[in-house]
Amino acid sequence: MFRDRLAQDAARIQDQFDLVLGALDDLDVTRAMAYATEGGKRLRGFLVLESARVHGIEEARAIWPAVGIEALHAYSLVHDDLPCMDNDDLRRGRPTVHMKWDEGTAVLAGDALQTLAFELCTHTEVGNAEVRAEMALTLAKASGAQGMVLGQALDIAAETAVAPLTLDEITRLQVGKTGALIEWSACAGARLAQADPKPLRQYARALGLAFQIADDILDVEGDAEKAGKRLQKDAQAGKATFVSLLGLDVAKTRAAELIDQACAALDGYGASAETLKDAARFVIARDS
Amino acid sequence: MFRDRLAQDAARIQDQFDLVLGALDDLDVTRAMAYATEGGKRLRGFLVLESARVHGIEEARAIWPAVGIEALHAYSLVHDDLPCMDNDDLRRGRPTVHMKWDEGTAVLAGDALQTLAFELCTHTEVGNAEVRAEMALTLAKASGAQGMVLGQALDIAAETAVAPLTLDEITRLQVGKTGALIEWSACAGARLAQADPKPLRQYARALGLAFQIADDILDVEGDAEKAGKRLQKDAQAGKATFVSLLGLDVAKTRAAELIDQACAALDGYGASAETLKDAARFVIARDS
Repeated sequence: MFRDRLAQDAARIQDQFDLVLGALDDLDVTRAMAYATEGGKRLRGFLVLESARVHGIEEARAIWPAVGIEALHAYSLVHDDLPCMDNDDLRRGRPTVHMKWDEGTAVLAGDALQTLAFELCTHTEVGNAEVRAEMALTLAKASGAQGMVLGQALDIAAETAVAPLTLDEITRLQVGKTGALIEWSACAGARLAQADPKPLRQYARALGLAFQIADDILDVEGDAEKAGKRLQKDAQAGKATFVSLLGLDVAKTRAAELIDQACAALDGYGASAETLKDAARFVIARDS
Repeated sequence: MFRDRLAQDAARIQDQFDLVLGALDDLDVTRAMAYATEGGKRLRGFLVLESARVHGIEEARAIWPAVGIEALHAYSLVHDDLPCMDNDDLRRGRPTVHMKWDEGTAVLAGDALQTLAFELCTHTEVGNAEVRAEMALTLAKASGAQGMVLGQALDIAAETAVAPLTLDEITRLQVGKTGALIEWSACAGARLAQADPKPLRQYARALGLAFQIADDILDVEGDAEKAGKRLQKDAQAGKATFVSLLGLDVAKTRAAELIDQACAALDGYGASAETLKDAARFVIARDS
């Protein structure tokens, strides 16, 4: 059920990307933008579409922020992969953008994907002006120097720090780096409906943390071919992770507890939230 | 009159940057963000504040998009200066961000400055929700792959093109690369007032083109020390410019004609538009 829905939503998001990006001039930078948005789980876009369904919002409205958050996520990956950042040559099983084109094209394509995210989230079909302004402001707060970029900066600072990060520090880092966008995505449905986002926020905070713990477990236990990227990077870099701090068994138990909390937060929505609950369970069971 | 107002507005914009950036965590990336926004003419922020005055909008509202557009401009410079782009080591007479810190910090600081631009333009003090949503959507259109980034991409494509650009092609390139943000800035006052931006748009289009022609003239005739950056770059790179296509004399005449057109577009505003007219005259008289 959940996997079918995820696959359907991913296809719907791809169609919308084709429409939006197909309207741009045909240049290296726009081709690189399209390439960078292909593939991936589309988990953030799925959370937007699914939280919108829970609130009875039609897909024709929710598709814009769903594609917007995927554009923002794609920008962060393109820039993260650059030689001056994580220096990755493989992403989703394919050459990264700077390997397929060059670094200048990767910088520019990432820049334009970030801009596109704000354009899509304020599209006139998203809702009334209050909804559109709120979408843009909350997205900026989630992705900038108080959200995702803060997490990335803390991650870079940790590399040259004398002592490894503590559990509190690594939690703060991850809440920014991956948690903020997951929270924004899950709350999007409530924002589109101008409803209280609190239950979805509780769900997303537990889910985001579980997602990162699962990523750390995957980095240790995973299969690089299935994951489509290099693994064991953190251990090689001597980086503190949830697994290095908690141990593998405790990390797995903690992730499972967080998923239970995430599901419980949605009890008030009744049966309409079953797919979101399935998504939470998937996050700690995935192999890529 | 104009120079005093420009200096006052620049100081006001700096105060607001201090307030906004001072609230962030103290990290390399946030220090680099502050560094990148220091100095410069603040012409785009000035255009926001001044077009707002023409429309009777209080500064406490207009300051947000004024700082927002300067954050966006700063992001574009930080990324443009990177080794994989224009590879500049000097900007406003100081080391560029990647020289003072490193390339990773420059990529991330630029990314966060772009995000900040959208956050500031949708700040709740900017106006009602319609104004805020419109600010974000128009800014995205002006700065993304149909605006500024399109201009940058056309610029990069021109470097490897077989034939030098024609006058039409270089005009399209520059309308994107520098014109789109200047137009957004000048129209901001009308948007804040929910008034017709047409006269300001006509002003800005002529101004933006004159600004770029003046830049090309400065690249040939200017003093690198006053300009605070390397000059004669375009000639060395064998790039077509307005000067190489038109010749120096015709380029100067064309710039002067455009400034006359820009000023004429504002006649309907009466005396309140005098400072904007002075700004247009300054654009072709500056030495930096």
